[in-house]
Amino acid sequence: MKKRLFTPGPTPVPENVMLRMAAPIIHHRNPEFMDVLKRVHENLKYLFQTSQPVVVLTCSGTGGVEATMTSLFSPGDKLICVNGGKFGERWVEMAKKFTGNCVELKVAWGKSIQPEEIIAALKAHPDTKGVYFTHSETSTGTATDVKAMAKAIRENSDALVCVDGITAVGAHEVRFDDWGLDACVTGSQKGLMMPPGLALVALSPRAVKAMETAKLPVYYFSLKKAFKAYEKDDTPFTPAVSLVIGLDESLQMIKAEGIENIWKRHQKLSAACRAGCEALGMRLFSNSPSFAVTPVWLPEGVEWKAFNKVLKGELGITVAAGQDDFLGKIFRISHLGFYDELDMLTVIGALEMTLKKINHPFEVGAGVAAVQRAFLEEGVAV
Amino acid sequence: MKKRLFTPGPTPVPENVMLRMAAPIIHHRNPEFMDVLKRVHENLKYLFQTSQPVVVLTCSGTGGVEATMTSLFSPGDKLICVNGGKFGERWVEMAKKFTGNCVELKVAWGKSIQPEEIIAALKAHPDTKGVYFTHSETSTGTATDVKAMAKAIRENSDALVCVDGITAVGAHEVRFDDWGLDACVTGSQKGLMMPPGLALVALSPRAVKAMETAKLPVYYFSLKKAFKAYEKDDTPFTPAVSLVIGLDESLQMIKAEGIENIWKRHQKLSAACRAGCEALGMRLFSNSPSFAVTPVWLPEGVEWKAFNKVLKGELGITVAAGQDDFLGKIFRISHLGFYDELDMLTVIGALEMTLKKINHPFEVGAGVAAVQRAFLEEGVAV
Repeated sequence: MKKRLFTPGPTPVPENVMLRMAAPIIHHRNPEFMDVLKRVHENLKYLFQTSQPVVVLTCSGTGGVEATMTSLFSPGDKLICVNGGKFGERWVEMAKKFTGNCVELKVAWGKSIQPEEIIAALKAHPDTKGVYFTHSETSTGTATDVKAMAKAIRENSDALVCVDGITAVGAHEVRFDDWGLDACVTGSQKGLMMPPGLALVALSPRAVKAMETAKLPVYYFSLKKAFKAYEKDDTPFTPAVSLVIGLDESLQMIKAEGIENIWKRHQKLSAACRAGCEALGMRLFSNSPSFAVTPVWLPEGVEWKAFNKVLKGELGITVAAGQDDFLGKIFRISHLGFYDELDMLTVIGALEMTLKKINHPFEVGAGVAAVQRAFLEEGVAV
Repeated sequence: MKKRLFTPGPTPVPENVMLRMAAPIIHHRNPEFMDVLKRVHENLKYLFQTSQPVVVLTCSGTGGVEATMTSLFSPGDKLICVNGGKFGERWVEMAKKFTGNCVELKVAWGKSIQPEEIIAALKAHPDTKGVYFTHSETSTGTATDVKAMAKAIRENSDALVCVDGITAVGAHEVRFDDWGLDACVTGSQKGLMMPPGLALVALSPRAVKAMETAKLPVYYFSLKKAFKAYEKDDTPFTPAVSLVIGLDESLQMIKAEGIENIWKRHQKLSAACRAGCEALGMRLFSNSPSFAVTPVWLPEGVEWKAFNKVLKGELGITVAAGQDDFLGKIFRISHLGFYDELDMLTVIGALEMTLKKINHPFEVGAGVAAVQRAFLEEGVAV
């Protein structure tokens, strides 16, 4: 059975990236590796649309967010953390652990936070030192308007704008410098089309300045150490060499396609995916859909286990289940990273085959036709 | 030019391990990956010779040591850290950062700490909560008698025995349970014959108990979270999937060869390497040689840069330079992981060719003959 991954991280790894990583290992304190890291550093600036350094850490995306929290802040610093899903929940827990002073801003799953809400929170908490929010919540497939949020925070406070861009960078428009972000983190296994194991962290000059006086204890995740090593195209600790080499390959692919084309591609694929699902009578979960992952409600009367038994077990398609309260109620289709239009036809076609096999009524061909129309007809709203 | 790596991490990765890692990526919250992780967990117990859980973290070995420090101790806890090289130095810095109460036990580079010294330190500091020391110091190629040290600590204190086994596990005898260790850490790019990116951490029941009351703030490196996930053959955060899959392959190789055979192989290879170097008139650096890496003094009058220009630039052999005060004075030959007897002939042969090319006087053939004798003759002291 041919297997196809439609999960929002890990996402499929292109063959040329796999091959680069399969080459004999090299030593990280040698010129051969420094050359790779130098190119990676340059291309990461392009990815984040920044002229500032972007550092590579060996850890998951969560480790990258921890690095920003422990490197930029001090005990007692007030952090506002937006919680609209599993990952927002994580940043709240983390802030409680580290600075011990967290204002949690809860947002219903599937809804995105509005700038007015963050302005109100900042007015209620004028001593806020940093705001953490998620660009694209993987658990809910919901996107936040980062540009508007950053503007709202900057205009109403001196708090650092800290963005969890883990599932967004390489899918959604991100302009680190133009939008005035202070910290932005992504992970390798997302829009970067790589296996997991690396986090990438961009910091603004304001954030670098904050780092100088930050007092939380930090060692492995010290961005100060990472930035110092960056100057020499080095890392403070042994990096995941083979993954960095793979990243070099995938960043070159991103540069060749062009970051703006990639953002547009993700927007188109997500629109086609939503059109296909709706044509099959499935309701969308989010009111502000992510371009990285589309969560849909299972049709009335369809059991997740029976559904996935066919989809995964017979058709080889892996999608992501719903989480927490939405386990068994929604599922999530990823189009993040190495996907094209024909992949959307594939996944919607597989959904049709699955619904047929479990005897759920729908109009055969309606989903795939909707996907085709989304790509081939003019004027389709994206 | 054929390239050969003789560095103590990264170490060469076997072709079958590279191939496993080059296979299409799978999702970590799926049964396919859980099966891999289950087998990895089992085989890690064998590697550490323990019946206790050993967890996989996505980070370098340093991250693994940080995980033990931040998960097992509380602010103010006194830690004795043995510093006999670059890595010992790191654990001192780390303890100062995290518990803020560190007794540094300095040992000259190239010398190993003796049990009497740790007993004296424990008597002077009866309130010590943990002792950190390095089994095989990579910077100095020096091994410590972990069994004797653990015995000395256990008999004289309740302090937890915390071993940096990063360059030792899979090269030196390690019996986690029998020797009464409480925490032991290794990294993937060492005896495990893998690229860097994973740390492996074993904890004793005493350490698990200490974890329950430990109060340092910790999130990504929380061993409590890691142990909880371990129960379900899971990880708390997205693991480096491709590396875990490679680790599955290399652990199966280790099991097939047999851990005791692997310890003996490393002992033999290191003895042959030392014999070869001495036969070429090079002095050994350490008074307690590691089985993982052999540091030797450059011969009188030989410049490191000219020497390495031939060895690496013309012969494709990468060894490690000396560090800090010993940069340009010593170099280090690794025989850690995927090496055999013929590899020792190769590296000593390359040293001979290099000495010849830079016109340093020596008896041609003396080094390789000594290596052959070490392997082929009976009764060679190892």
